[in-house]
Amino acid sequence: MKISVLRIGHRIFRDQRITTHCALASRAFGAEEIIIVGDADEKLRKNIEKISSEWGGDFKISFSQTWRDIIKKYSSEGYKIAHLTMYGLRLQDTEKEMRKEKKILLVAGGEKVPPEIYQLADYNISVTTQPHSEVSSIAVFLDHIFQSQELKKDFKNARRKINPAAHGKDIS
Amino acid sequence: MKISVLRIGHRIFRDQRITTHCALASRAFGAEEIIIVGDADEKLRKNIEKISSEWGGDFKISFSQTWRDIIKKYSSEGYKIAHLTMYGLRLQDTEKEMRKEKKILLVAGGEKVPPEIYQLADYNISVTTQPHSEVSSIAVFLDHIFQSQELKKDFKNARRKINPAAHGKDIS
Repeated sequence: MKISVLRIGHRIFRDQRITTHCALASRAFGAEEIIIVGDADEKLRKNIEKISSEWGGDFKISFSQTWRDIIKKYSSEGYKIAHLTMYGLRLQDTEKEMRKEKKILLVAGGEKVPPEIYQLADYNISVTTQPHSEVSSIAVFLDHIFQSQELKKDFKNARRKINPAAHGKDIS
Repeated sequence: MKISVLRIGHRIFRDQRITTHCALASRAFGAEEIIIVGDADEKLRKNIEKISSEWGGDFKISFSQTWRDIIKKYSSEGYKIAHLTMYGLRLQDTEKEMRKEKKILLVAGGEKVPPEIYQLADYNISVTTQPHSEVSSIAVFLDHIFQSQELKKDFKNARRKINPAAHGKDIS
């Protein structure tokens, strides 16, 4: 299963930290890439690329001026569109079906999402039906879809690696 | 199992949004409360209290000038201290054991955590051993400890409730 994340509603400056956390959670929990809708934010891009080169793997970050073109392109390439929204169907009721898909474009919005997205999505998915965060929605969605196998994912070509320790830090 | 979250490293203004997301994820994924170390941030407090009164439940938010007193107090009340850190033992290797506990104080740091916390913690726990976010660490930790039962938690006295929908929004 390949999952790409489409982050919509990113406002440069104001959302930099939340979007950085979205990108890092996407990477850590096994997504291939994040596409951020908005002006290219070079500080954000460099930050993520630096972490990727340090901690390994092939995670990609890119920017797009419009979400519509990305959804169109990915749909035409066989991706199913899953939109994270507190109004959607419950994750626990839909995850089994979604696991049969080969490729998913996971759309994570901010507070205001264009109503059209709800219609374009193959799946509108809610994680808890309570308000929380794009960051936690992305992470818990991926953890469920990958059935926690991503927790032990090996990130290739890492320059730093953690050896899990009961107390303190052990890095190689 | 009762879980309280202790958020350390909160800096007023700079961390307001991330800490808000930490609080909302703590609430949505079944924690009882969040205690934030730092000056009382009234805007943050009001924001969380407003969401709780709208969406139900008894989630509490409070502030403390020092993490040391909170850890001492909760330890003396029988809480085990679980500290979220990318350097800790893997969640998937420790969650079964932790589920036997009755009460956990979950410590979620920012970038710089005092070394003493690693020693005071009964459990140092990593979620993926990769860098991501306090928000996703809290959510995935709680989801594992509660074995996803919190995803269908009923929040009492909610003034608004979502009826999960395949497309669009259905609120009662």
